[in-house]
Amino acid sequence: MNLPLGFRYAAAYAGLRKIKKDDVALIVSDTPAVAAAVFTQNRVVAAPVFLARKNLRVSRGKVSAILVNAGNANCATRTGEQVALSTIRAAAKALGVKPHYILPASTGVIGVEMDGGKIVAALPALAGRLNTANFEAVAAAIMTTDTVAKTAYAEVKSGRQVARIAAMTKGSGMIQPNMATTLGFVVSDAVVSPAALRSALKRAINSSYNRISVDGDTSTNDTVAVLANGASGVKPSTKAFETALTSVLESLAQQIARDGEGARKLVTIYVEGAANEKSAERIARSIANSPLVKTAIAGSDPNWGRVLCAAGYAGVVFDPRKTDIDMQGVAVCRAGLAADFDEAELKCKLDRPECYIRFAIRGGGHGRARFWTCDFTEDYIRINASYRT
Amino acid sequence: MNLPLGFRYAAAYAGLRKIKKDDVALIVSDTPAVAAAVFTQNRVVAAPVFLARKNLRVSRGKVSAILVNAGNANCATRTGEQVALSTIRAAAKALGVKPHYILPASTGVIGVEMDGGKIVAALPALAGRLNTANFEAVAAAIMTTDTVAKTAYAEVKSGRQVARIAAMTKGSGMIQPNMATTLGFVVSDAVVSPAALRSALKRAINSSYNRISVDGDTSTNDTVAVLANGASGVKPSTKAFETALTSVLESLAQQIARDGEGARKLVTIYVEGAANEKSAERIARSIANSPLVKTAIAGSDPNWGRVLCAAGYAGVVFDPRKTDIDMQGVAVCRAGLAADFDEAELKCKLDRPECYIRFAIRGGGHGRARFWTCDFTEDYIRINASYRT
Repeated sequence: MNLPLGFRYAAAYAGLRKIKKDDVALIVSDTPAVAAAVFTQNRVVAAPVFLARKNLRVSRGKVSAILVNAGNANCATRTGEQVALSTIRAAAKALGVKPHYILPASTGVIGVEMDGGKIVAALPALAGRLNTANFEAVAAAIMTTDTVAKTAYAEVKSGRQVARIAAMTKGSGMIQPNMATTLGFVVSDAVVSPAALRSALKRAINSSYNRISVDGDTSTNDTVAVLANGASGVKPSTKAFETALTSVLESLAQQIARDGEGARKLVTIYVEGAANEKSAERIARSIANSPLVKTAIAGSDPNWGRVLCAAGYAGVVFDPRKTDIDMQGVAVCRAGLAADFDEAELKCKLDRPECYIRFAIRGGGHGRARFWTCDFTEDYIRINASYRT
Repeated sequence: MNLPLGFRYAAAYAGLRKIKKDDVALIVSDTPAVAAAVFTQNRVVAAPVFLARKNLRVSRGKVSAILVNAGNANCATRTGEQVALSTIRAAAKALGVKPHYILPASTGVIGVEMDGGKIVAALPALAGRLNTANFEAVAAAIMTTDTVAKTAYAEVKSGRQVARIAAMTKGSGMIQPNMATTLGFVVSDAVVSPAALRSALKRAINSSYNRISVDGDTSTNDTVAVLANGASGVKPSTKAFETALTSVLESLAQQIARDGEGARKLVTIYVEGAANEKSAERIARSIANSPLVKTAIAGSDPNWGRVLCAAGYAGVVFDPRKTDIDMQGVAVCRAGLAADFDEAELKCKLDRPECYIRFAIRGGGHGRARFWTCDFTEDYIRINASYRT
């Protein structure tokens, strides 16, 4: 896959993680890029998120580099702001750019003081290692409990010319986004105006990161940032760019849900016939967040009663007697009642790594939503009962 | 414990469960009792809930008997209404009372046709078995995945005279009440007016059943009913009755949380310093519902960052830098930052079967709330991945 022009990447081990695996990384644009970002809606906000927001204001939406670390969220600590500031200053120095052109991001444990000195010490080597090929190495460095690195690529055309988009993300617990979740970084060499980039990101996020849930928890560090440096000289239409960005973010969102902590299955939920899109999304989210639905999927149990029940407490008015539910394309509920289906056969179909739940309200409105989640297994508990040890 | 006068109880095995354990029961008042009840707020409502609501309207709040079964929720089925109606008719016949004086309740799997004939067939024997001592047998018959029967008792005085309250309930998954949850039956021989009974129940529910969560799921069958038959001739003050009713319902609510599916620990969450009680409750509920908090408790991990984070997405405005968190009475977070505590020692304290989390906002308002939940263990997944098999 061709990467966007004008970006370089580097990852290194600074010693923030206990295991020796890259935990700090840089994404650098050769020229200041037009940037847009969305952040967590949690009231508790990590220091790097505060600083990233501030830097975007000061730089008027320009970003030269993203400095990211895994292993420590730099949240709810005495030294949070000071540490975040010292690390972007060191990065600015190593890269020869102004500090407010650096976007900081952190992920990891909350409430433990972060040793910024480790990042500062690693920065010269990190900067020296920058090259155009290290994209996947950075995607690996930002992983926490993720089991696979998550990347997505797209091309966007303008006449016969092509601009590129490359994106990476990390999950994999604490995933119940409201606006943004976890860390996601998108780079593009397209020429895009700041306003077009912001509105494209806002809309693309709504159908991707805002439509996934692993455990209903919203993190303190969620950040998705898009950098467009125009290095290709190609200026696609606003619509074409947004379409490509959406496809990339939807791919990342699906990858996050599929790799949810302990997950063995990606579950796609389609809701149709709600009064409007918001209602459809609420029903989908309620189904996606139900531990009873998610454990049933883990056990390959076509227990559609739990799906109906979860929809019932979504806070949306609908007539249960007009609802149809399908699982893996098999009708399991018609007009609110059990459909006639082969339970053993469907159980086999639910063993597949991709499961589909369709929830439709007959004679309802045009509101529809697609939502991704994962099954809920014993491994989720195992991972999270001892995350810090 | 002295049971209220004028009530008789019976339980039997009708064959609704796969295992041979009592699955149908009667609670009968010798004279029609003044009754009040709260029901699920789910949009999907089981047939017995519909019928119970209707009967209470028709009888103007009078109830002669509760007919309850476990093993099948009689929800989202073709024959639901007809089955519920046929069973209360059979009960009415066996007891010699009018059908609308019978309050039906069901719990169990959703979406599977219930064989009402089994209950109808069991009713003559059930009625014949009625006696004043079978209270605990009924409490056992309504259990589903509960590991222990749940009962609570209280006395309420009026001068030197005493009236009695006895109550039973069942959990233990799908517990995220909004108004009521699961099944709870309270009987009393106090003389109480219908209006006083309704308002006492409403207030008592708010500090008990509405303050527990096991998994965030709200069932389709939730019912809590109180019957007061006046058989003692004792008329306590409204205040005294409400206090006694509240103590009984809070005890039942705690028992439900403690016996949550797979739970090994009862977790009590105290929130203080919120702007008002509603905000305090929202924060408490958000902490109680967080899988990350609940798995940390399961692992005896004093991961207070997850508590702060869960409060942060409760939708309540507060300043994280003014929050204090205690676990097991140990200060773990002060002013939003890690407190200096002995982690190994606290880990030992968190191994206890009762855990306490205190979340306080400094210089905040007078809003406070107490909430109960349980830890989230691998057994929850095991139980729910194969509930129907």
